[in-house]
Amino acid sequence: MTQVTIWNEFRHERTDPHVAALYPHGMHATLAEGLARTGLAIRTATLDEAEQGLPETVLTTTDVLIWWGHLAHDEVSDALVEHVHQRVLDGMGLIVLHSGHYSKIFRRLMGTNCSLQWREADDRERLWVTAPGHPIVEGIGAYIEIEREEMYGEYFDIPQPETLVFVSWFTGGEVFRSGCCYTRGQGRIFYFRPGHESFPTYHHPEVQRVIANAVRWAAPATK
Amino acid sequence: MTQVTIWNEFRHERTDPHVAALYPHGMHATLAEGLARTGLAIRTATLDEAEQGLPETVLTTTDVLIWWGHLAHDEVSDALVEHVHQRVLDGMGLIVLHSGHYSKIFRRLMGTNCSLQWREADDRERLWVTAPGHPIVEGIGAYIEIEREEMYGEYFDIPQPETLVFVSWFTGGEVFRSGCCYTRGQGRIFYFRPGHESFPTYHHPEVQRVIANAVRWAAPATK
Amino acid sequence: MTQVTIWNEFRHERTDPHVAALYPHGMHATLAEGLARTGLAIRTATLDEAEQGLPETVLTTTDVLIWWGHLAHDEVSDALVEHVHQRVLDGMGLIVLHSGHYSKIFRRLMGTNCSLQWREADDRERLWVTAPGHPIVEGIGAYIEIEREEMYGEYFDIPQPETLVFVSWFTGGEVFRSGCCYTRGQGRIFYFRPGHESFPTYHHPEVQRVIANAVRWAAPATK
Amino acid sequence: MTQVTIWNEFRHERTDPHVAALYPHGMHATLAEGLARTGLAIRTATLDEAEQGLPETVLTTTDVLIWWGHLAHDEVSDALVEHVHQRVLDGMGLIVLHSGHYSKIFRRLMGTNCSLQWREADDRERLWVTAPGHPIVEGIGAYIEIEREEMYGEYFDIPQPETLVFVSWFTGGEVFRSGCCYTRGQGRIFYFRPGHESFPTYHHPEVQRVIANAVRWAAPATK
Repeated sequence: MTQVTIWNEFRHERTDPHVAALYPHGMHATLAEGLARTGLAIRTATLDEAEQGLPETVLTTTDVLIWWGHLAHDEVSDALVEHVHQRVLDGMGLIVLHSGHYSKIFRRLMGTNCSLQWREADDRERLWVTAPGHPIVEGIGAYIEIEREEMYGEYFDIPQPETLVFVSWFTGGEVFRSGCCYTRGQGRIFYFRPGHESFPTYHHPEVQRVIANAVRWAAPATK
Repeated sequence: MTQVTIWNEFRHERTDPHVAALYPHGMHATLAEGLARTGLAIRTATLDEAEQGLPETVLTTTDVLIWWGHLAHDEVSDALVEHVHQRVLDGMGLIVLHSGHYSKIFRRLMGTNCSLQWREADDRERLWVTAPGHPIVEGIGAYIEIEREEMYGEYFDIPQPETLVFVSWFTGGEVFRSGCCYTRGQGRIFYFRPGHESFPTYHHPEVQRVIANAVRWAAPATK
Repeated sequence: MTQVTIWNEFRHERTDPHVAALYPHGMHATLAEGLARTGLAIRTATLDEAEQGLPETVLTTTDVLIWWGHLAHDEVSDALVEHVHQRVLDGMGLIVLHSGHYSKIFRRLMGTNCSLQWREADDRERLWVTAPGHPIVEGIGAYIEIEREEMYGEYFDIPQPETLVFVSWFTGGEVFRSGCCYTRGQGRIFYFRPGHESFPTYHHPEVQRVIANAVRWAAPATK
Repeated sequence: MTQVTIWNEFRHERTDPHVAALYPHGMHATLAEGLARTGLAIRTATLDEAEQGLPETVLTTTDVLIWWGHLAHDEVSDALVEHVHQRVLDGMGLIVLHSGHYSKIFRRLMGTNCSLQWREADDRERLWVTAPGHPIVEGIGAYIEIEREEMYGEYFDIPQPETLVFVSWFTGGEVFRSGCCYTRGQGRIFYFRPGHESFPTYHHPEVQRVIANAVRWAAPATK
């Protein structure tokens, strides 16, 4: 059975009442509930736990790691980043969510700045599928609509994705490559844009579906 | 000097007064004027000329062929398509514009249906640059804005581009991969979305600039 | 359960005693035996059967089609090629073996000539893995060695593979991109080089393993 | 005029008489002579110079940087690597030669370990062209032959190249992806395998030709 670990910075939810109302037990808990329903083995981990939530025993037994970070990218230790990096090269899958684009681990794997344009508004977002037939969009139609989200816009400073699965449209006039597949070493990486902390995005069934699909796609071949 | 041939179906301009008003001598003439200013050697060719405008002597001396077609894709002879195909594989550059996505030559080079969603409205289009630093966007800022254009939307049934240079945003809620680079054999191919016949798109200086840049990118290395 | 159809031209085996000795019931039968052991549902089809082995009822119920052809590419009807093409774009997987590089269906999907260099000798071939961690090489080490095979050499006139899984080395001084992944529409395509009719290549356990892996990789996501 | 800076570790040539005999003024000097003949503006820089040869004034005025390192990757300062990295993302071209695969800057740009197999023998190497028509192989035939070279073999732990230009064959039974193109940010990167210090590889006219072509390909579009 594929072993998933959901890592969450888990700061916004403990300091901002608005975010806490949306995710009372943290975004990781909401994601864990959704994924567990699909028959995956789920653990969660957060930054302020011992060893930043990812002691060696956890990391070496994780098949797919999901990563949400925002305020505290710099607090993640370089040693942990190094360890996660080697685990990915050795075949562990990695799903990087939303503001995780700016995490140390994603920037290290990409080799670029991973910067982008953004606007904290309440744009409507439509994620159009540009790779129908790809395992990550199984069960998804022509697009996913999210009523209100933070805007992320191009230029997104990443290497051209090996497969571009989603492109987002935003009310305000922007587009964004919002579902991006990569391979590094033996590991598969999926960046998925949605999930600003102040919106209920991770309760959205199709967003949950994509993340579950991505876990299956990113799991090592031998699992 | 790079020898460019601009091929145009040239039917709308002769039958529709609205189009004729925008392009009195045909879209090919407007494009030719723009390109000539950048120091390229330009010829034009149209469907209703002898040998559909592309006799052997023209085709074999063309470094980069620009293609605009819409109503009459089926009238282009299979023999001509075969010849253009071989010329591309042998190194001739090819720039396919707008409704040329559905031409025999583009479908043959792509190996897919090349279908897409569309809506003849007067959406605003913004073409966001997703590959800054690429020769095709030299001199272009973060995006190109076109006041009114026909909408083309995903899913666009093409192989994933080798380099995705532009992604379009449309007022109505759609996105489109609107600048796509490919190599087939020794030839380079650029698909560029803008240019519905009922709008003055090919008078737009940045659209002209992109096409001129694309000609230089697609020209054989020995030129 | 994934439904596989193995299509074989099946001419060499009926006319050349040397080939018949290696594959008494045809290469398709040897491949079918190997794949059946891995728990896939297997059918076979050959060129000289009714409707060239692929009536509508067979084609529309095939999840992954395996294709071996050589002498008789031209005899495959254009209507059948058209049908297989649309099935691939709609999501059917396609595994093209060895001399199938020059089949109508592969050339149509690639958009190039698919020509290559070759020499009928008895070179030793080593297929080096260039994408460890890819599902197609599950269970395979650093390389596969084939004692005697026909040589195929570069330049192989194909679009750059989306993922290059194997590169072959040959005794005589050549290399070849011998395991190539593509997506066209919703369908996944894998080209795999080995399998000249006059060598016992399809009895090789690792060659069989790669083909079985490729079937699983190419199967539609909903299977 | 494109401004090229050739950076060389320049240690082997000063300590090993055999290497010194091949490159009396250093490999950078041999490369500089070859490139100067093609009309490029050339500077050289070496590790043991002030600021490791690349003070800010040099780096910010370099259009394309060529990098040869081997023994002393670790001595290159992190601050310099950071600076070169940002320059590449801002559009400076980078040509990484031979053992530079293991340099800090290449590993940082790739996001992988960049490890490979190797054997210090005197294999014959043939670099087969897999992208004819690409500007980097202008003037090169089907392959380049190098009489004696160190062997580098797969698996080479790099992201799949955006364009794979050369694949090497070695006498001993190995293959290697020996000419690899990437884009990171606005910068273009070319990895080129040949150039072990104990062989006269950089005197080889076709090797010089490829490097000169690569400089032109990697130069910023505005140059």
